[in-house]
Amino acid sequence: MWRATVLTLYPAMFPGPLGHALAGKALGRLWDLEARDMREHGLGVHRAVDDTPAGGGPGMVLRADVVAAAIDALGPDDGHPRVLLTPRGAPLTQARVRALAAGPGVTLLCGRFEGVDQRVIEARRLEEIAVGDVVLSGGESAALLLLDACVRLLPGVMGDQASGDDESFEGDLLEHPHYTRPREFEGRGLPEALLSGDHKAIARWRAMRARADTRTRRPDLWAKYVARTTAGVDKAGKIE
Amino acid sequence: MWRATVLTLYPAMFPGPLGHALAGKALGRLWDLEARDMREHGLGVHRAVDDTPAGGGPGMVLRADVVAAAIDALGPDDGHPRVLLTPRGAPLTQARVRALAAGPGVTLLCGRFEGVDQRVIEARRLEEIAVGDVVLSGGESAALLLLDACVRLLPGVMGDQASGDDESFEGDLLEHPHYTRPREFEGRGLPEALLSGDHKAIARWRAMRARADTRTRRPDLWAKYVARTTAGVDKAGKIE
Repeated sequence: MWRATVLTLYPAMFPGPLGHALAGKALGRLWDLEARDMREHGLGVHRAVDDTPAGGGPGMVLRADVVAAAIDALGPDDGHPRVLLTPRGAPLTQARVRALAAGPGVTLLCGRFEGVDQRVIEARRLEEIAVGDVVLSGGESAALLLLDACVRLLPGVMGDQASGDDESFEGDLLEHPHYTRPREFEGRGLPEALLSGDHKAIARWRAMRARADTRTRRPDLWAKYVARTTAGVDKAGKIE
Repeated sequence: MWRATVLTLYPAMFPGPLGHALAGKALGRLWDLEARDMREHGLGVHRAVDDTPAGGGPGMVLRADVVAAAIDALGPDDGHPRVLLTPRGAPLTQARVRALAAGPGVTLLCGRFEGVDQRVIEARRLEEIAVGDVVLSGGESAALLLLDACVRLLPGVMGDQASGDDESFEGDLLEHPHYTRPREFEGRGLPEALLSGDHKAIARWRAMRARADTRTRRPDLWAKYVARTTAGVDKAGKIE
């Protein structure tokens, strides 16, 4: 069973949205979630977890000793990647999500306040990951998003839908746009190619749209795609 | 009062984590959240909201007519940006978050299944936004993250902490690392500069670390920063 452990000051935020829909149905059956309150490792009668920034400035910083105690209390290293959600981290990618989902589980540490003392990040070798180029009130909503992305890939959770090779970010491309019934909506018809019944023509149209939309919407991804396919690494992704 | 409206098939996921901590304390006082069930606009006795993809393939697609009915039932256009959370969207940025938080509110539409019929995205001029280069089981966890990023910026929610100019992504830089007590942690001391008491030296060290970490961790952001500062657009962000 894939196992997620979350260290947070707000354990009541979990499982939150992950307790609903397909992730919720699979919770306790195909994956497991434990949220631990870091405040249990706080100092003194007030269980203080934070202190003022060294060098001054506004806000508070999560103490290295408190965070280390919370991590160490999880027991011997179980080999699960230990991730700190922080805007200073590497941007989360679908490739990292796939790797995490293919492993035994993940331990997520949710930053709060101004951030976490850098020394415990280094001493406990935390992997710093950012979800979106935005600043959050804490790492909790990023942790929930990361777990949602992982859980849907676990065998049995979503079935075939989650395994498609033409999902966005596979092969550095966005997915093609989608259409369904009715055939006409407010005067807008369906793309001709999708009505042809010709499976090869449909696949060709979708691949063309995936490339065209990636180029206009995500020039950064498009540059990676072009570099990779031009280098001949991915014959399947060739430009027609 | 800043107002968030969410169109979803899982209204019970809201407010979820946003009902806790500072966002939760401000809910109903400084901001408001309404989650509406799109299934109310589903078709037939089973309230169907989806159908098979035009052109074939796995999964289901949210119908344009159902989504349009859910949007139109919100009443006359209130001028709030209408955002569809989708991996095909533009990456969420702190600048977009700031703009949304400075406005009257936002309407968020959570995609599910394979996606939403492209025709309603165009007909209702939805702004497509992606949170992280990952595929989710639905737009809900992305909506929660986006709202968390906005709500913390609303006046009165977090106070001074949220308004700092040296937060990550301001001026295309990551924030400097943080430190606090104790002075020594597992043999690791504090950076000399932070102990100096010299506020100018501390500010200089932090600015240096922000630039150094951005360059090594986020070459993409660094390139933007260099282009902007070299162009002389931002005198305040000059390299020393």
